[in-house]
Amino acid sequence: MKKSAKVPIVSIIGWSGSGKTTLLEKLIPELAGRGCRVATVKHYSHGFDMDREGKDTWRHRKAGAACTVLSSAGQLALVRDMDHDASLDEIRDRFIHDADIILSEGFKRDSAPKIEVFREALGEEPLCRTIDDVMAVMSDVPLGVGCICLGLDEVGKLADLIEENFLKT
Amino acid sequence: MKKSAKVPIVSIIGWSGSGKTTLLEKLIPELAGRGCRVATVKHYSHGFDMDREGKDTWRHRKAGAACTVLSSAGQLALVRDMDHDASLDEIRDRFIHDADIILSEGFKRDSAPKIEVFREALGEEPLCRTIDDVMAVMSDVPLGVGCICLGLDEVGKLADLIEENFLKT
Repeated sequence: MKKSAKVPIVSIIGWSGSGKTTLLEKLIPELAGRGCRVATVKHYSHGFDMDREGKDTWRHRKAGAACTVLSSAGQLALVRDMDHDASLDEIRDRFIHDADIILSEGFKRDSAPKIEVFREALGEEPLCRTIDDVMAVMSDVPLGVGCICLGLDEVGKLADLIEENFLKT
Repeated sequence: MKKSAKVPIVSIIGWSGSGKTTLLEKLIPELAGRGCRVATVKHYSHGFDMDREGKDTWRHRKAGAACTVLSSAGQLALVRDMDHDASLDEIRDRFIHDADIILSEGFKRDSAPKIEVFREALGEEPLCRTIDDVMAVMSDVPLGVGCICLGLDEVGKLADLIEENFLKT
């Protein structure tokens, strides 16, 4: 795997219900199986509740801790306050140092290169017609768009494309 | 608040059941109320399960992501693989950059300055008799130990001590 100064970022975009998480569930093991250490970033517009009520770390946060870390030999977790929506670059630079690639979900206005997931039944236009930097569309129907178009199940070909563009030396 | 190059770390130690988390639940708002941005770190010997089954981030991790970040405008969470038990210094240097103080729970073998919570009914010896760097003991009985001894409810005095030693310019 290529060792560049900055971890490359590829965003999976698509209308709600198009299957972004489902694609990631296939793409992550495909890349991991090729020896790639994958990090993922998911954007939530309306906040989230990660911690569980009553647990010690939940008690720390509720008492007013701006940041809480749980540490064990096999896993580390962190929950912290933010005062803005962080960009993918900021998230990478502050929190992800040792991945080969970052795959993000839900950052369609960010400047990272993008893969669109498209499903005709949703009745929407492909996002790549209005959003820049879409390098490929995974679609359930052939599309006349100015970028690579693959079938929804062609995850191996998508991994080839990502490897070729972001992971090869 | 003092702005030093490294965020100071104070560990809350004590036998299981002594009330470490309960003390932190009082100490965190006491320090936060004095304008201090508090981060906490909790050590788990046996791992933990922070994420919730079925959520998108849980699906990312299950698919093989070595690190997963959730981001929103008000909060950020991260869960990642580790291949070792991180020291408090490592956790600070890699993940906590903008706190005034780090209060940790459960790192009694780490070299950070320590506050012990002691409760006579547990039938154990005070840890400060065998562990170095204990600067104060919060106890339900007076103890003949070579460091400051405060009552379990004297959280204001404990905050004074922390402020004096770690937060004053």
